[in-house]
Order: sequence, then structure tokens, then C-alpha cells
Amino acid sequence: MIKVGIIGATGYAGAELVRLLLQRDDVEIVWYGSRSYVGQDFASIYRNVACSAEKCKDDDVAQLAEIADVIFTATPQGFCAAQMTEDILSRTKVIDLSADYWIKNVDIYEQWYQIKHPTPQFIQEAVYGLPEINREAIKPARLIAIPGCYPTCSFLTLYPLVKEGLIDTDTIIIDAKSGTSGAGRGAKLGSLFCEVNESMKAYGVGNHRHTPEIEEQLTYAAGKPVTISFTPHLVPMNRGILVTAYATVTKPVTSEQIKAVYDHYYQKEYFVRVLPEGTPPETRWVEGSNFIDVGFKLDPRTNRIIMMGALDNMVKGAAGQAMQNMNLMFGLPENTGLKQIPMFP
Amino acid sequence: MIKVGIIGATGYAGAELVRLLLQRDDVEIVWYGSRSYVGQDFASIYRNVACSAEKCKDDDVAQLAEIADVIFTATPQGFCAAQMTEDILSRTKVIDLSADYWIKNVDIYEQWYQIKHPTPQFIQEAVYGLPEINREAIKPARLIAIPGCYPTCSFLTLYPLVKEGLIDTDTIIIDAKSGTSGAGRGAKLGSLFCEVNESMKAYGVGNHRHTPEIEEQLTYAAGKPVTISFTPHLVPMNRGILVTAYATVTKPVTSEQIKAVYDHYYQKEYFVRVLPEGTPPETRWVEGSNFIDVGFKLDPRTNRIIMMGALDNMVKGAAGQAMQNMNLMFGLPENTGLKQIPMFP
Amino acid sequence: MIKVGIIGATGYAGAELVRLLLQRDDVEIVWYGSRSYVGQDFASIYRNVACSAEKCKDDDVAQLAEIADVIFTATPQGFCAAQMTEDILSRTKVIDLSADYWIKNVDIYEQWYQIKHPTPQFIQEAVYGLPEINREAIKPARLIAIPGCYPTCSFLTLYPLVKEGLIDTDTIIIDAKSGTSGAGRGAKLGSLFCEVNESMKAYGVGNHRHTPEIEEQLTYAAGKPVTISFTPHLVPMNRGILVTAYATVTKPVTSEQIKAVYDHYYQKEYFVRVLPEGTPPETRWVEGSNFIDVGFKLDPRTNRIIMMGALDNMVKGAAGQAMQNMNLMFGLPENTGLKQIPMFP
Amino acid sequence: MIKVGIIGATGYAGAELVRLLLQRDDVEIVWYGSRSYVGQDFASIYRNVACSAEKCKDDDVAQLAEIADVIFTATPQGFCAAQMTEDILSRTKVIDLSADYWIKNVDIYEQWYQIKHPTPQFIQEAVYGLPEINREAIKPARLIAIPGCYPTCSFLTLYPLVKEGLIDTDTIIIDAKSGTSGAGRGAKLGSLFCEVNESMKAYGVGNHRHTPEIEEQLTYAAGKPVTISFTPHLVPMNRGILVTAYATVTKPVTSEQIKAVYDHYYQKEYFVRVLPEGTPPETRWVEGSNFIDVGFKLDPRTNRIIMMGALDNMVKGAAGQAMQNMNLMFGLPENTGLKQIPMFP
Repeated sequence: MIKVGIIGATGYAGAELVRLLLQRDDVEIVWYGSRSYVGQDFASIYRNVACSAEKCKDDDVAQLAEIADVIFTATPQGFCAAQMTEDILSRTKVIDLSADYWIKNVDIYEQWYQIKHPTPQFIQEAVYGLPEINREAIKPARLIAIPGCYPTCSFLTLYPLVKEGLIDTDTIIIDAKSGTSGAGRGAKLGSLFCEVNESMKAYGVGNHRHTPEIEEQLTYAAGKPVTISFTPHLVPMNRGILVTAYATVTKPVTSEQIKAVYDHYYQKEYFVRVLPEGTPPETRWVEGSNFIDVGFKLDPRTNRIIMMGALDNMVKGAAGQAMQNMNLMFGLPENTGLKQIPMFP
Repeated sequence: MIKVGIIGATGYAGAELVRLLLQRDDVEIVWYGSRSYVGQDFASIYRNVACSAEKCKDDDVAQLAEIADVIFTATPQGFCAAQMTEDILSRTKVIDLSADYWIKNVDIYEQWYQIKHPTPQFIQEAVYGLPEINREAIKPARLIAIPGCYPTCSFLTLYPLVKEGLIDTDTIIIDAKSGTSGAGRGAKLGSLFCEVNESMKAYGVGNHRHTPEIEEQLTYAAGKPVTISFTPHLVPMNRGILVTAYATVTKPVTSEQIKAVYDHYYQKEYFVRVLPEGTPPETRWVEGSNFIDVGFKLDPRTNRIIMMGALDNMVKGAAGQAMQNMNLMFGLPENTGLKQIPMFP
Repeated sequence: MIKVGIIGATGYAGAELVRLLLQRDDVEIVWYGSRSYVGQDFASIYRNVACSAEKCKDDDVAQLAEIADVIFTATPQGFCAAQMTEDILSRTKVIDLSADYWIKNVDIYEQWYQIKHPTPQFIQEAVYGLPEINREAIKPARLIAIPGCYPTCSFLTLYPLVKEGLIDTDTIIIDAKSGTSGAGRGAKLGSLFCEVNESMKAYGVGNHRHTPEIEEQLTYAAGKPVTISFTPHLVPMNRGILVTAYATVTKPVTSEQIKAVYDHYYQKEYFVRVLPEGTPPETRWVEGSNFIDVGFKLDPRTNRIIMMGALDNMVKGAAGQAMQNMNLMFGLPENTGLKQIPMFP
Repeated sequence: MIKVGIIGATGYAGAELVRLLLQRDDVEIVWYGSRSYVGQDFASIYRNVACSAEKCKDDDVAQLAEIADVIFTATPQGFCAAQMTEDILSRTKVIDLSADYWIKNVDIYEQWYQIKHPTPQFIQEAVYGLPEINREAIKPARLIAIPGCYPTCSFLTLYPLVKEGLIDTDTIIIDAKSGTSGAGRGAKLGSLFCEVNESMKAYGVGNHRHTPEIEEQLTYAAGKPVTISFTPHLVPMNRGILVTAYATVTKPVTSEQIKAVYDHYYQKEYFVRVLPEGTPPETRWVEGSNFIDVGFKLDPRTNRIIMMGALDNMVKGAAGQAMQNMNLMFGLPENTGLKQIPMFP
């Protein structure tokens, strides 16, 4: 039985972790951390989880480290890094769903996030928790930085073609669209039903914080520095991220060749489903699951490839991917507890 | 391994059955029946189910009966009854999700549905598949009539108080609201996004076909004829049924007594969650699950009780309940494959 | 040119007033009152209204009374009553969109709202601003209490049959459904997109504050005390209220007779559209307009009539009705600036 | 009084024309053309327009030409061109909302639309009805081709910077998002509520028919051939188009200079609202109006400009723009009947 603690259990990502973990027989949640709801039944806040009578506790990572085999921190950016100590990491594993350990270059982190990193000494140790890329490094890790929802979708959509040098990395443009759960459960004006429903907008244009994270990962894949345009949009739906990415091909290539490259990288990946050319991914086909659907279209008129990916930002974009990492860290089959078929409609 | 055939697999209810059944290890789907898509990959029609390479077949119940341990018919009203024979029932079990065997009085059926029942000889044998009420009758049955989505929600919401004689059955009014998946996957003008979104309406006012089904079940519970008002409404959401029912109390009663009655009937029921008085059920807390949440409010100003229920019309209102019946018929724990926690948001 | 001041201009109802008033040539808005946004351009908060460069001002009713011909108060309950003085009413007209002067019996007001009414001396003078009922009283009034959205829809749906004694007022049940703009623009958890979308719930069951307001108006119509059940529901759409009301008929009556009664009361009313029997109103057909659609269905099985009404809660349920009152008070055609055809889809 | 005939009055665009035209005092609709609903009351099909008792008629353009001052054809692509004759154009003006006369090069038209153009002799005469660009040509025209919704939004967003040579036209990528009304009122599976709601997808990737239309207009502006990437997406909302366009700057430029260029071209345009740099347009701020909001962000990291535009596809993208053209053709102020302030929420 794996003993699990969750800090930030009453945010959307934390609650999704609860939902996924409670459906397993081999996991016990020993700590529902939530500053906002200390002392209240978790099930009174998330009434979907009516089977749990556990009360929310304060965010005491040190105490939790003594009883948990693994701690998930689904907290605002800055929290996890401020708590991290060698002592904690010597006692338990930490899987962080925030931005704190995404970026290896601390200067870039501090420039984009406008704060001083409190524990830069752990940045190098932290493993970027994208199992499809870093599987072997994840298994023995003590500290995992779960990729952001946009970066997961963007990177897996682009990775094979960047890795193979098939697209000109100077021409990469990522136009991304997200459901509203990505904005979190904070009571903000911009997240109100009447502000989001029947509307669509771009935000963070030219300066969204997921940009350097995507660039860093693409840089590793390309073997040279990559700078991209990344524009996220808010869409009136609960879940789902759709990425439409554009790049110019570096040499004459056929659709079949492109497809073969995608298949080469992903055919053994349980969670990545490569679609036939010309079949665009749709978020409805992945909702509620840990799958990411990837598709593409070669456009000979412009010598560009349009690459597309769709995932559920709460699952493969957050809680599901976190559990996928946990499975690897505990020597379990990677898809344990994650075989849910997407729910439609 | 239970061999399962589905007739009508490409409607919303049929596809939900596929989704639920494919997640089990003890079931094999041997027939994806679909008149509209014969010869096409099921997974090309429902791309959430990308793991299946099965092709859709025509609707041949007789042939299917030879290879399947159980057949689900998620077909338009009239189909199942027209196919039914003693031979089929001697070879396999049939779980019908249509209206064909809901109503024991064939005159009432023919009056409300305006067609002649083709096989009335099976009506008495058919068991109304509401496990919370008819559990023991379901276990040995050959032919099950899965209750409609509205009747399941309405009846389970009202049942304990009707059974105990606490409400005047002459005063029962059921105001029900449903998500749009209840209208099926047919390409009808009234189901278009732009016709449903940002709107709400009642329909079938005074003559909806679920009325006699609800009345028959309430009549059994009350031990005397019950006539009700039933008004369904269409709501701009995918899934979910909410029932708000009104009735006058027959004698002075306290909230605690009402709660105790609900608990008495439902505390051992895995799928029925009775809420504290004054906590109205919400469809978001049951979405994607086989749970039904039931709540109530006693109103001393009017001597009425407002009874409320919420369920997912695709799961407890259709495919999930069908699988719950299957579990009973095969001697399995009733919640096998149905422990999914509702998905929120 | 009518000089208009709006207190609470940046709430949804206030902003809807701005939208409607700015489209008129005979009105000038001289005061955009908003405590939350003092000093900011109104058009930076509501970017639909890009043509206005007016800055928001604090809520100074006394000062405003000196320059405005009429003041609209679209403020939280309690504000208007606390500001009201004889001096203000001697200088200007006041049209209050809050609850403060809805209820003539101050005891009932204080019991349901749990506050002491600060200026009960104006309650009798205040005219309940439902033009279809109180047209003549509105014209010379100094102080108008604009009816709530639910009461407007409920009352106009029921009024003719109550007035004519055709329904048993002891049996009235009103099941109402509202879009989310009715909850206002406050940043509350329960109004977040992900909390409202894909869900439906009842709220305020048995104790919603609009209940005594509806009862008072129905009491006037019936000529005897009326007590009702009123249950509001939250629906995932921006605008729209749908009322489904139930009552038992007092004597044998035909659909034609019912229709004739409705027509008798409403055929000269520009904003009330009576539908043929069996055509349920839908909120999409009134969105963006000051119309209310009213329909009904006689159910001989239960001796009940189901009465239905639909309106746009922001227009006929708030700002439009307020402007309709203003027109009457200034001797203008009642539909001045209110002839918008509903927008669909 | 301008006598207006509408062919295709019961599609979404046609009905929006009806809505806008009925609100005018100087226009009379003399023909509600609708093949699908011949003989039925228009108001029974679009119940928002309850004030009209007109019956739908068949599509007889020749007969209509004798009684109408202007004919709007809101018909499927191919219809208008097949009907067009010199005789019709000599009797009345024609404003076509379909694709038939968008593209001057008939080879390109036939290649992208895969049909033979039946009346190419009128292609050169037809004026591309974008008033902000072709105002003077529109005034005396007999035949207008109303631009598509995507092209209107795309072109007005890009036009000033292309015209001034500030962006490299070889790098233009247009990522567009549309509400579902753009798909029309046909009862198609892909337009069902449950298929669209809670999902997002790209479609027509690399081969959408609006591509050559946008390219032709950009070619005129650039003075040299322009080839673009254009990717439309379907969004779960009724109305609204959002365009996010990317291009590399041709020389060092500041945000202030970009803003000045936009202002230069649009400051006298009533319907184009240029936003401050860094304020992305949102479709909610233009819903129900003929406005288009245009914004941009200069990204020095990539030397790209992100250009954004938002409009209501039913108004500025179809019926409103058609009426704007009509106003010009009849010597009226261009915004007659089009001053509606966007409706929010």
C-alpha cells in the first residue's frame, strides 16, 4: 500500500489526483492538505468524492514527509520550492505539479516568474516528469517536476519532428487553446461563468510563463537553442487543451514519412495515440483520460507542417501525468490506474 | 469471460456501454451492432475508444444469440420487441435499454406509444431492471427492461416516501431537467448546438412517454393507483438529469424522520447517496458515475416536501444501470466495473 | 434630453441599463456610479461599450439627485433604502432595481431579509414597477420598485388565471430556472465557469427571498392570501429565466377558454406574447429583448394546468423593465428603445 | 421605403438579416424565401421574430427581381451564380452572401470549390463587399459579394500592416476560431450539441475554401502574390470569430508605430475598434454587433507581430456587413440600423 499525501488537495488538480488515487486499491491517501479548508471534510468540498470522510489538514510538508511514501504538491508556484529540504527528500518522494522546478536555468526562471528561487540547489536534481521522454530518469528520482499542461501538449506534439530535424525550429509557432479548469478554482472575475461562456480570447500573448519551459524542452530535443511563439487562448469548456503548431519543413518530405516518424517515437507509448494524416485531434476524444492524441497535416502550398495535439489538461496535463510518474517511481506498470477510456459525450 | 453483444452500439447509450465494458477484464465484446455503420471500425466513429479495432456489424439478434452470453439492445423503441423469440431467450440473456418492456399493461403501452406491441407474451416475464427495488428478481431473469433515465431518477427520488405513505400521491408533481445526450445521436434540428445552447425549454408537457412508466412503478410502491404530473426540460449540458419533485405530506413529520426513512431504504445501497436535508443534489457531482444523489427539503409553510435527485443519464440512467443488472445476472458483485468516482469539473 | 444617473453601473444589471440607454437619442447618462471602479473608464470595464469615455464615480445619490432627472439604483439590497430621503424624491425620480421596496408589509420584509428596513416611510409610496399591472400608478410615481426577475416571470405567467379564479391558489407550485447572470458579477466560487458549466441544481429551496414578493402580488390578484412553493434552479447559460408553474383548475375548463383568458389580459400588451396551447416558451426566443413569452398546457389526466413563461432576466427581468417604467414616467411610448427583436442564435 | 427580398431567409444568416431589417423603419421585407419551409409562417420557424406574419415563399429570383429594390441571397454556394442574369441585374441590386463571386480568378474558384462556375461573366463586375476597403466601388454596384466571416476578420486584422509592408507576407499564419453558428442550420451530426459542447478541434486544415479568398485580398493589399497558412477551429459557443495571426516584421518597428498604422487606417471607421497594444480582443465584447475589435502584440523575442481580431460572424461576418453594403448602395449613412452595442453577457 503506497501512502500518499497531497498538498493543495482542494484545487482542481489536487482534487483530480484524489479522484484518480481513490479508485486504486494499492494506494492510501493519508493527507488531504488544504490551507483554505482546514478541518472540513474533503467530501463536503468535492461532493463527487462522497465516499471519503477525511478532513482537510494544513500544509505541513515536514510532518507529512514522515508518514507518506510520496507527496504531491499541487500548489501555487513558489510553495513547493520554499518548503523543500534535503531532509524531506531523504524521507519521501516529492512530485511537484507547480512551476518551481520546470526550468533548469535559474536566471530564466527568475526573469519570467519575477521571484527569487528559494531552493535552487534542488533544480538540477529535479527530473522533468515527462515519461515518454525521461522514463529512465524518473524511476529513481526523489523530486519530480510535473510538466505544465500546455508544455506537455505542445512538446509531445512537436517532439518527433524536432528530434529528427524535419522542421525549422526558427519557424515554430504554437497556438494553444485551453478549457477553463486550467485557470484554477480561485474566485476571480475573469473565471466567472458569464465572463467565459460564449466568448474566446488570447491571453499572455508574447509573455506567457509556459514559453521558456517549452523552449527548454525543445532545445534539448533539437540540440540547439529554440525560440518559439506561444499564444494560449481561453475556451468556454471545462477540460481540454488543443495545440495547433506550425513550422516549415527543412527538406522535401512526404506525409508517409512524417507519419512514420511519429509512429517510430510513439507506437510503444500507451498514452500517445498518433492519428492518420488529416485527422485533427479533438479534445472530446481524450476527456477524462490520460491519452494525448497527436495528428498532423503537411501543406505543400506553404511548405509547412501543421502539427496538432489534444489532451485533458486535468489528467495528462496534471494529475494523470503525476500518477504516471508515481507508477514509474514505485516500479509499477506505468498505466496502473490510468486506463480510463475517454468519456464522451 | 462474459461474451457480450451490443445492438445499437453507436448510439450514445450503446457507446457508453462499450466504454464501460471495455474497461473490464472479465468481459469481451463480441458484437458491435450498428445498422448505420456496418463494416466500419467502431473506433473510427467513437474515437475515444481508440483501442478497439472491431468493425460494426448488422443487427442480427438471432445470430448473436448463439455466441453471446448476454445481449444489450440499445435500440429505438420497437426494435427489441420485434426481434424477441423464445428461442433467443433460451440461448442468451437480453438486457433491453428501450421502452419495449417497461409497461406491464399492454393497453397503456399501445395507447402512449401508438403502436401495437409485437411480442406481448414476454411482457410479464420481463423484469424492470431497477436493482435497488427488484434485485432478487433480476438475478435469475432472462429478459430485463432497463428503466428510462427520467424514471430511474424520479422513482428513486420518491420511492421511500411513497412506500412509507408519507406523501399524498395525488399531489405528486415531477419537474425534471435533462442534458442533451438524452435526445440521442440522431441529426435533428432541435439537437443542434446553436438550438440548445443558451436556451432552456419544457417539452412533452402533459404527454411525455415516461409518464406511465413512472406511474406504474409508483403504483406498485404505493399499493394504489398513482397519477402524476411529469414535465421534462432540455438543458444545455451534455449529461445529467435533475429531478425536483413536489408532494404534500400526509401527516406531521420532521426533517429527521424524513431523513431516517431515506436512510432506512438506501443506507445499504452502494449507488444511492442520501444528502443531508437542505443540500440539493447537483448533476456535476454524479457526472460519469453510476451514483444517484438524493436530497429533500421539508417546507412547513406549504406542508410540502421537495424531493430532489441527480444522476448521469448515460450511466445510472442507461448503460451503467444495464451493467449493474448484468452483474447481478452473472452472480458478480453489483458494482463490478462501476466504482468510478464522478468526474469534476 | 432625459438626464440619467446609474448607481451600480458596473454590475450586470447596471451595465445592461447602460447598453440600452446609450442606444437612445433622447437620453444622456450623466453618472456612471460604481464604488468598485471609481475613476476608471466605464468602457475599460465593459469593453462592449467602447464608445463611451465616461469615468465611474462614487455612489453619491444626494449629489446625483441635483443633476439627474431620474436615478436608477442597481445596487445590493439595502443600499437604496438607506439613501432614500424626502429631499431626494423631491428633486428627482428614483427607479430601484433592488429588493428594498418590493414588499409592502415591512415585517415580512424584515423576516425574510433579516435586516431592519431603514426607511419604511417610503414603502407605501413606492410603486411596484410591473407596467402590465400597475401602468397608471407608475406614470406619476416618484419611487419605483422594479420587480425581481423571477417574480416578473412567475407573476405574468400566472396572473390571468389567478385573477379569473381559474386555478386553486393553494396548489400553486413554481419551478423556476435561471441563467447565471442572475447571480451577479461578484467573484464567487459558485459562479465560476467550471462550477456552473455542465451542471444544474436547485438552490434556496423553500426559503428563497423572491417567495414573499411573488406571494404578495398573487395575493393582490387573487383577492385572498396566497402561499406558494417556489424553487429556483441554476442553469449553465448566460441569460434567461424559464418558469414552469403548476396548479389545479377550480372548475371544468377548455384549452380554448384558457387561451381566451390569456389573450384578454395580454393582447394589447406589446411585451407579452401568448403562445398557442402546447407550444412551450423557450428562453432562446426572448434573449436580448424585453419580451416575455407565455404558454400553457391543460392536463385533463391530473386536472392541472401547466403554465410556462420565458424572459431575459437582464432585460424584462431587470434593465429593460426599468427603462419601460422610465418611459411611462416621462410620458413616452412605453416601448421606446425597447423594440429589439430577440437575438438568435 | 426600400423593398427587400431575402432568398434563404431561414438559414442562420438569412434569419439574422430578417432580425436586423425588421428593426428598421425605412425597409420592408417583401419576400421571405425558403425552399424548406414554403407556405409556413416565418415566425413559426424563428419564434424570436414573433411580430411577422409573413409566409415563406419558394426561391424565385426572377419574380422577386420585379418587386424588390434589392435581393439578398443567403444561400448555399452555387445557387446565386446559377440564377444570375443580366435581366435580373438590370432590374434590382443583388447582395450575395455566398462564395459565388468572391474570387476573381475563375480557375482558382473552380479548383478549390470543385464545380464549374455557371456565370463567370459577372465575376469581374461583382464588388467584394468590404466597405472599409472598397467603399466607393460598393456605392454604384449592382452585384455585391459579401466576404466570408473568416476572411472579413482575417483581412481587417492584417490589412494595415500588409498594406504598409511592415510584415513579411511569406510568414503569415492565420489561426482562426469560430462559434458554431458558422456551420449553418443544417441537421448534421457534427453540429449536434453533444458533439460540439466541451470540445474543440481544427478542421479543413490546409485546404479550407476561405484560404484563396483571403489570399486574393491580401495580394491586392501587398501588391504581390501572397500565400498563407489558414487553420479554422470549431469552438463551443454560438457566435463569434477570433483570429490570431502571426507574421515576421520586415524591419525594426515599435509598438507605437504599429499602433499608429492601425489608427491611420481605422480611426475614421465606425465599425473597427483598434485596441491598445497588449489588449487582446474577445468575442464577448462584439457579440450581437457589427463591430470588429482589432489588437496586436509585438514580440521582440521572435521578431513577430501577433495580430488579433474579433467579430460576430452573424453580423459583421454576414448579415450586418450585408446591410452595411446595402446602406452604401442606397446612399444612406453606413451605420443605419447597425449601431447596436454588443450584448454582454
